[in-house]
Amino acid sequence: MSDTAGQSLGLVEPKSVSFDETLRLESDGQLNGYTLAYETYGDLNAQHSNAILVCHALTGDHHAAGYYDDSGKSTGWWDNMIGPGKPIDTNKFFVVCSNNIGGCSGSTGPSSINPESGKPFGTDFPIVTVKDWVHTQAQLSDYLGITQWAAVVGGSLGGMQAMQWSISYPQRVRHCVLIAAAAKLNAQNIGFNDVARQAIRTDPDFCDGNYYQHETSPSRGMRVARMVAHITYLSEDMMGQKFGRNLRKKAKFDYEFTPEFEVESYLRYQGDAFVNRFDANTYLLMTKALDYFDPAAETGNDLTTALSPATADFFVASFTSDWRFAPERSREIVRALQSNKLNVSYTEVACPQGHDSFLLEIDDYTRVLRAYLNRVARRLDKSATGARE
Amino acid sequence: MSDTAGQSLGLVEPKSVSFDETLRLESDGQLNGYTLAYETYGDLNAQHSNAILVCHALTGDHHAAGYYDDSGKSTGWWDNMIGPGKPIDTNKFFVVCSNNIGGCSGSTGPSSINPESGKPFGTDFPIVTVKDWVHTQAQLSDYLGITQWAAVVGGSLGGMQAMQWSISYPQRVRHCVLIAAAAKLNAQNIGFNDVARQAIRTDPDFCDGNYYQHETSPSRGMRVARMVAHITYLSEDMMGQKFGRNLRKKAKFDYEFTPEFEVESYLRYQGDAFVNRFDANTYLLMTKALDYFDPAAETGNDLTTALSPATADFFVASFTSDWRFAPERSREIVRALQSNKLNVSYTEVACPQGHDSFLLEIDDYTRVLRAYLNRVARRLDKSATGARE
Repeated sequence: MSDTAGQSLGLVEPKSVSFDETLRLESDGQLNGYTLAYETYGDLNAQHSNAILVCHALTGDHHAAGYYDDSGKSTGWWDNMIGPGKPIDTNKFFVVCSNNIGGCSGSTGPSSINPESGKPFGTDFPIVTVKDWVHTQAQLSDYLGITQWAAVVGGSLGGMQAMQWSISYPQRVRHCVLIAAAAKLNAQNIGFNDVARQAIRTDPDFCDGNYYQHETSPSRGMRVARMVAHITYLSEDMMGQKFGRNLRKKAKFDYEFTPEFEVESYLRYQGDAFVNRFDANTYLLMTKALDYFDPAAETGNDLTTALSPATADFFVASFTSDWRFAPERSREIVRALQSNKLNVSYTEVACPQGHDSFLLEIDDYTRVLRAYLNRVARRLDKSATGARE
Repeated sequence: MSDTAGQSLGLVEPKSVSFDETLRLESDGQLNGYTLAYETYGDLNAQHSNAILVCHALTGDHHAAGYYDDSGKSTGWWDNMIGPGKPIDTNKFFVVCSNNIGGCSGSTGPSSINPESGKPFGTDFPIVTVKDWVHTQAQLSDYLGITQWAAVVGGSLGGMQAMQWSISYPQRVRHCVLIAAAAKLNAQNIGFNDVARQAIRTDPDFCDGNYYQHETSPSRGMRVARMVAHITYLSEDMMGQKFGRNLRKKAKFDYEFTPEFEVESYLRYQGDAFVNRFDANTYLLMTKALDYFDPAAETGNDLTTALSPATADFFVASFTSDWRFAPERSREIVRALQSNKLNVSYTEVACPQGHDSFLLEIDDYTRVLRAYLNRVARRLDKSATGARE
């Protein structure tokens, strides 16, 4: 726990910036202008060399750290990692996190009003990809005056964005931190995503994606989607330790369809909570972006070639109990980076928490990440400007 | 393939038997009489000593082998394993398989007419358990004049029934064959089952389980339930080999919500096919029976004590790539049987097909099962009657 010692950022405020120009997307779709919601923590130094971009995962957003009020319910999703004295130390770094387009937390997404129709985009919102997100994040970087990131950091789908940054904008990434990531989804991953999508899209309240106008939402489908996803975020062992076959505050079975086991209550609770905080069309888009990500597809399925533009130093971390993106998926990335003669630090953290580990306070994990970012901070002093080394 | 050599049984016919007496269930519910649909293959010998009971798994039924017509679409679910010259050799054995109560293939279940109301039972059908099934199978044994089974055989949920037979009726089981089974579900297994149940029960067409009267069925929920279950029947490696990231007969992404990847089409197809052949209330009941099964719960969570009544010889098989009921779950059973000084043969088959392996023709698997059952057949000759050895 000492490794996540440090203070909270306290009250933070979301910001937003709008770009007027037409954004052409990888899917051939386009947005006639768009808004990015984002937050920043810490101070940008005079050389503009101490900025870290944090990329969020499937259901995250720009509110990565601090809180909006004293309710205790508005804490950022990576508050344990970001703050003064924390592993991503805002005493040293200027930290930026934006909500991806297609999102539902302030950036332009399916629930935003389509200026052309005056109604929410719904399913008229185009498919967006990891490449598109990185492109919009680069526009945000320009706006913020950040020529080169000291580090681009992400876990899971966020790690895919960090990887894409190292390929699309090698000169703008000095260090690249990939946590619990993969270079592409496998068939099982895609299968689970499609289960979620089918649950949502076949919910009668989905209304072909235009549920906003009907003042409803596909909450049944979203609930099921979240329940199944949640199982894949945990490990079998962790679920065994946490729930086992424990019954809900009773000694005997009721032999009814009400939840008998604690694990049923837990998953249903997670499903219900998700329905209230997330937009279904956004969830569909985010899972599609996961499916499509595969930089090696453009280089004859050779990941080494796909990563050959990269010049950053890399930190790669995986978790032994993560079966969604197992350590072997990270090792595949590490081998490709090493084949490109890049500097790579790799750590495989032994822990039972599964894929969710990247969000948690796990000593071995936070210690190595802190140490790595301390090195990044020390190198800032040697860097006169934000230019390439 | 040579190990599943043998002939097809050819045309077979389902039978049924009705029992008038009241069946009291473990759940405290009861049925005022019930019908079992069953099939038999081969001939019962004069001593009634050569009978094998095959117990079906989650979505199986009594139609285990042979076919009903020449359409090629009515083949039994274990036809590769049961027949003249096949591993479960009907030249040697009299094979019996019945549809479990709660089922939807002819035995009394939720879609049967409740004689008291004149309408389908729907959710008035009581919760049934593995113990209840074994009890009804024992009544069928009495009806067929089988005092002792040469073997009780089952895979997955069928293996749980075979295990329960060895505990509830030790004198009636000479050999017990447990394939890809587990002594209880773990939290992850229960979680996946509850995802399936919630998908079905929250489908508006579920109509609180009385969809029969509304001439509809919760097909959207069933489809999603089957899709997610199917992922857990396969292994990650097998899905990788079979589908990988292959696109559906095209070179590029459409960037649409139509299926892009082969794995999506496959799972949706499996989901749709299931809707047409299975009753939702039965699926709910079968998954509950899985959840509840835990013989060691009655003996202070000590499986050795739970299995101490057993006197059978055991054959236990697991599959290396099965992550639903991994080999360690079978080894746990083997250790408990060995602690009871019972004869146990255990085989761990190395193969990539996952949990579904138990249904497939896999050389190493069919060879050891054939060899074991050949030994069972040889011992028949030494057994004067169906009594205990």
